[in-house]
Amino acid sequence: MSTRFTLHEDPISANCYKIRLTAALVGVELTRVAYDIRRGQTRTPEFLANINANGRIPVLQVDDAAGSRFLPESNAACWYLAHGSALIPADRWAQADMLRWMFFEQYSHEPNVATLRFWLAFVGESALTPAQIAQIPAKRIAGEAALALMEQHLSAHDWFAGNGVTLADIALFAYTHVADAGGFDLGAYPAIGRWITRVRAIPGFVPLD
Amino acid sequence: MSTRFTLHEDPISANCYKIRLTAALVGVELTRVAYDIRRGQTRTPEFLANINANGRIPVLQVDDAAGSRFLPESNAACWYLAHGSALIPADRWAQADMLRWMFFEQYSHEPNVATLRFWLAFVGESALTPAQIAQIPAKRIAGEAALALMEQHLSAHDWFAGNGVTLADIALFAYTHVADAGGFDLGAYPAIGRWITRVRAIPGFVPLD
Repeated sequence: MSTRFTLHEDPISANCYKIRLTAALVGVELTRVAYDIRRGQTRTPEFLANINANGRIPVLQVDDAAGSRFLPESNAACWYLAHGSALIPADRWAQADMLRWMFFEQYSHEPNVATLRFWLAFVGESALTPAQIAQIPAKRIAGEAALALMEQHLSAHDWFAGNGVTLADIALFAYTHVADAGGFDLGAYPAIGRWITRVRAIPGFVPLD
Repeated sequence: MSTRFTLHEDPISANCYKIRLTAALVGVELTRVAYDIRRGQTRTPEFLANINANGRIPVLQVDDAAGSRFLPESNAACWYLAHGSALIPADRWAQADMLRWMFFEQYSHEPNVATLRFWLAFVGESALTPAQIAQIPAKRIAGEAALALMEQHLSAHDWFAGNGVTLADIALFAYTHVADAGGFDLGAYPAIGRWITRVRAIPGFVPLD
């Protein structure tokens, strides 16, 4: 049988968008199944038992001769889809350097830039808990630091790793290009702005819904 | 010239230990350079300019014919060192599944299990800021959830990905086996306990200092 790919996602999540963008760039079709994380639809007993015991989206479902298999973690799903493509450089250093930026994205960027977007643009400041409100200043500082590090790199390089677009660019583009929804002023980061323009110009690029 | 590897580290950091363990398992020698993160030694102008603009350890320095290159992010450094070894499975699914657990480690495990160890065992509860103390309950819950997910997986599998030890096991072993220092009771996770015994028995295993 041929391989079929299903993306379990919430359309507002840019972690899910990374996978749609990767699939578009490598020419793979995805069937999309939507869940509303604000309604707890990824924490139901059915979701935890059948899709992801970690209760999170995205999850890439791969159906092939080996059966149905489920791959959580956005950057791992991008890795699976991009296998054998130029989005993963073959050079040993460039590949590790690409992963370096992808781990940076999940550790230093997403918990700050993505979380503030979710809290401020989708939950709404008036609906946040006191514990969430108390975390905003630290996430603001850490998010600006992540953007500043990207700005520094992009002031000297067109792409994050190797000599062209890789999964590192896709992973970092996802939440960076909508960072203004989290209260970050991208106008303060001109090199990031030029890189966003470059990413949008990649043949096959698709926008966030 | 032959390749020389230098690890810029803080010996108390299990993120740095991941790299030492990987190097030991693949038979690579590392020169170790120590910094004290509690004294801000990774935030000096010299460190930011020459080692890592992100102000963090570990950083793997690789000196070869291409010059001196610096690789931050513990899991990316492990990837570089393990290139071509059995610690990175060749199978497409197993490789992506291994990365899935490594991203899980950095997103869902390390910020909770490692941070509570650092705060409680190295900074000391009396020296924490009010903002840090306010985060302890949420990090406790998220850390227990990460350990529970590992327990669930290890109740049915000997290793995290593929059919043997991979970088996913090394990445997760680092802070899990010292989780008690952060107030986590590993006695509640018997499958994790058996897996810790398996990891310690890997030929070439070296302990945390």
